[in-house]
Amino acid sequence: MSLIATPQTLRFEQPLPLRSGAVLPAYELMFETYGTLNADKSNAVLICHALNASHHVAGVYLDEHGQPQARSEGWWDNMIGPGKPVDTHRFFVIGVNNLGSCFGSTGPTHINPTTGQAWGADFPVVTVEDWVNAQARLLDALGIQQLAAVMGGSLGGMQTLSWTLQYPERVRHAVVVASAPNLTAENIAFNEVARRAIVTDPDFHGGHYLREGTLPRRGLRIARMIGHITYLSDDVMNEKFGRKLRSLVDAAGNDDTDAEERTAYRYTTQDIEFQIESYLRYQGDKFSTYFDANTYLLITRALDYFDPAREHGGQLSAALARATASFLLVSFTTDWRFSPARSREIVKALLDNRRDVSYAEIDAPHGHDAFLLDDPRYLNTVRAYFDRIDAEVSPAAGSPKGGAAPLGGSDPQSGGAWGEAAL
Amino acid sequence: MSLIATPQTLRFEQPLPLRSGAVLPAYELMFETYGTLNADKSNAVLICHALNASHHVAGVYLDEHGQPQARSEGWWDNMIGPGKPVDTHRFFVIGVNNLGSCFGSTGPTHINPTTGQAWGADFPVVTVEDWVNAQARLLDALGIQQLAAVMGGSLGGMQTLSWTLQYPERVRHAVVVASAPNLTAENIAFNEVARRAIVTDPDFHGGHYLREGTLPRRGLRIARMIGHITYLSDDVMNEKFGRKLRSLVDAAGNDDTDAEERTAYRYTTQDIEFQIESYLRYQGDKFSTYFDANTYLLITRALDYFDPAREHGGQLSAALARATASFLLVSFTTDWRFSPARSREIVKALLDNRRDVSYAEIDAPHGHDAFLLDDPRYLNTVRAYFDRIDAEVSPAAGSPKGGAAPLGGSDPQSGGAWGEAAL
Repeated sequence: MSLIATPQTLRFEQPLPLRSGAVLPAYELMFETYGTLNADKSNAVLICHALNASHHVAGVYLDEHGQPQARSEGWWDNMIGPGKPVDTHRFFVIGVNNLGSCFGSTGPTHINPTTGQAWGADFPVVTVEDWVNAQARLLDALGIQQLAAVMGGSLGGMQTLSWTLQYPERVRHAVVVASAPNLTAENIAFNEVARRAIVTDPDFHGGHYLREGTLPRRGLRIARMIGHITYLSDDVMNEKFGRKLRSLVDAAGNDDTDAEERTAYRYTTQDIEFQIESYLRYQGDKFSTYFDANTYLLITRALDYFDPAREHGGQLSAALARATASFLLVSFTTDWRFSPARSREIVKALLDNRRDVSYAEIDAPHGHDAFLLDDPRYLNTVRAYFDRIDAEVSPAAGSPKGGAAPLGGSDPQSGGAWGEAAL
Repeated sequence: MSLIATPQTLRFEQPLPLRSGAVLPAYELMFETYGTLNADKSNAVLICHALNASHHVAGVYLDEHGQPQARSEGWWDNMIGPGKPVDTHRFFVIGVNNLGSCFGSTGPTHINPTTGQAWGADFPVVTVEDWVNAQARLLDALGIQQLAAVMGGSLGGMQTLSWTLQYPERVRHAVVVASAPNLTAENIAFNEVARRAIVTDPDFHGGHYLREGTLPRRGLRIARMIGHITYLSDDVMNEKFGRKLRSLVDAAGNDDTDAEERTAYRYTTQDIEFQIESYLRYQGDKFSTYFDANTYLLITRALDYFDPAREHGGQLSAALARATASFLLVSFTTDWRFSPARSREIVKALLDNRRDVSYAEIDAPHGHDAFLLDDPRYLNTVRAYFDRIDAEVSPAAGSPKGGAAPLGGSDPQSGGAWGEAAL
C-alpha cells in the first residue's frame, strides 16, 4: 500500500520580515507530513525542496474514487516513505512549499492584498534565509522545537545549511546533498541567461503577464532547456541520446521506417533532427505549462544570493562556526553544476570547526540529477545515517539523550493557525 | 608596421552542389590573403574560421586617411602575421569567409536570385563538407593545387579535418586546434537551446525577418550568452568575475560609492546584481547588433552535422584512413566544450592508420577560448610546427621535396574569376 499524501495549508497572520528589508504580510504555507510525531516530538525531519519541487515529497494522491492517482508520487518518493531510507515508520517527515513558489504557498500568482491583483513582479525577493525563517514558524505551529534532521538536495541543501546557522539549537542533524556553499560565476551565468530568456519574452510584460492575460511560455521553455542540460552529465547525455536522430516512431508506437530513412539527415535548421533536441523541447514545453515565470526568477535569485561566508569576509569556516548539528554531506562525481569540490569546501569548513561530519562522494554517472535517482550506494548511505539518527532520538533505543536533547512539549509559538487541507 | 588587410571578393558562376541535395547557384566568397605566394605555389596556408569569425584573420584595416582603424585586428592576429607563429614573411596565408555567413560571402542576408528578396530562411543548409568544396574552388581560382597547411580552431578544426578527407592530395599538413571529430549530445543541446531562443523570438518570422523589417535580437542575445558561458572555463569565470557585484563605476570612470554600497545586495530579480550578468548582457547585446540570426542557425547546424565517422559505422579510424596529411592537434585542458579527450580520439584514429601526428595538450585555464589567446606554450608549439613546414616547402631549405611534393604551376580550374575588393 502506497503512502497517501494529504497537503495542508497553514495561514500565518504575523508579517515576515525579509532579508531585503521588505515585509511579507499575512501568508500561507502549504505542507505535507508523513509518519507520526512521537510523544517527545523528537523524530521530526524537515525536507527542503529545490527549484522545481514542492511540499509533495513522498506518497501519492488519491483520486475521487479513493484510488492512487497515476504518476502522483512525491519528488523524493524513492528516499522517503515506509521502509525507505528516511523511514516514515520511524520519522515524522515534513515537506513544505517555499514562499514565492507556484505550488501552493503564497507566491507571485496569489493576490497582493494591497492591490487586489496578482503579486506578479511585485512579490518581494525571498532568500534562503527567509524560507528557513518561514519554515521555523511552521515548526513552531506544529509544536516542534527541535528537528531530528533537516535534509535537502541542491537548493534544498542550501536551506539545510542555513538552518544550522540560523537555528543551530533546533537542528540535531543536517543532511546536505549535491549542494554548495554558494554559486560559482558559471552557475550564476546559467541562471542569468534563463532569467533573460523569460524577462525579454514579449509576453512577460515586466512580470505582470497575468494582468495582461498572457504567459511568457517561450522564455520558460528556454529557461528549462538550459536547466536540463546542466542537470545531466555529458556522459549520461551521450549514453541516453548520443547523436541518435529523431525518433521516427509515430504516435501509435509504430515504426515502419527503413534503415536508410532512420539514419538520413534531413538538413533542417528549424526542425528536430537529433533525439536530444526532441527531449529538450518536450521538457521545455511541459515545464512552460505549469511553472510560473516570476517564481523562476525568485528561486534562481535565491540560489544566486545564498552565500553564508559573505558576512564573514568570504571565510566559510568562520561562517559555519555557528553550526552545532552533526552533518552528512553527499556529492556525485559527475555533478558539474554542484561539483564534489563544492561539498568538500563545506566539509573542510566544518572540520575546521571540529564538527561531526560524514561525507560520501558517490561515483554516479547521472550528473546533478543523481540526487533524485536510485543509486543503491547513495540510498544506503542515507539509510545508514538515518538509522543512526533513529538510534539517538527513538525512545526504544533506551539510551539517555545527549546534550543536544530535544526540548519536547514546548507550546507552539503564536503566528500560526491550522488551515484547511487544500486538496 | 602592422599588416594591412584588404578583403577581396570572388564570384563563382558554377553552381555548387550541396550535401543536402540542394544546389547553390552563382555565389561569392570574400577572402583576404597575407604574404606572398612563392614561385612553385607551395607555401599557401588556408585558415578556416569558426562560428563568429570571418575571412579577416590577420592585420588591420585602414581608414580613409590611410591610418589603421582602431580595433580592426583580425581574429587570429596574434597567431598570423610577420614574425608570428604562422609567419607571413614565409607563408601565403588565405582567410576565407564561409558560405551562409553574414560577413561577406553569399549568405541568408543576400538576395536570392529566384525571388529577388533576401534568402532568409530559404538559404540552403550548408555543411562543413560544402564549405570545404567552396574553399577548394577558391584555391583553384588562385592557382593553388596543394596547401602547405590547412589550419583552424573549433569548427575551423572540423573544416581542416574535412580537407584531409575530401582532398587528401591537396593538404600537406593539417593543424586542428580545440576541435572534435563530432559534437556530443551536450554540444548539440547547447546549440539547440540557442536556436530555439532565436526561432521562437516573435521577431524571427520563420526566418524572414528582413522582409518584415524586424530582427530577432532577443533570441540572438540569449544564443550568444549561452555560447559565451560554454567558451569559458568555470575557473576563469570565477577568477575574472567570481561573485563580484555589478560595477558601480559610472560612465566617466568615477567610483564614489562607499564600501557598504559596493557589497550590498540590491535584491532584484530583473536588474543586474553580479558582474558576470553585466558581462553576459553586454556580450549578448553587442552580438545581436551585427550577427545574422539565420547564419547562426546555419553555422550551429554545420557543427551538429559534422561527423566523418558516420558513413563508416561510427568508426573514426576507418573514416580517417583517407587522410594522408601530417597532423598537429592541440587541445586545452580546461576546454569543456571540445575537451582534450575529443582531440585524443582524432589522434588515436590517425595513429591507427599510422599517420604522422603531433599532439599538444596545453594546460591553460581559459577553456575553449584559449585557442584565440596568447598562451606562450601554445603559440610556440604552432610556431615550431610551422618552422618544420617551412623547412619542407621553402626552396631555401634546399632539400628535395618528398612524396607529398606540391604540384606547382597547375592551371587554375574554371569556375572562378577575380572579383573586386569589397572594402
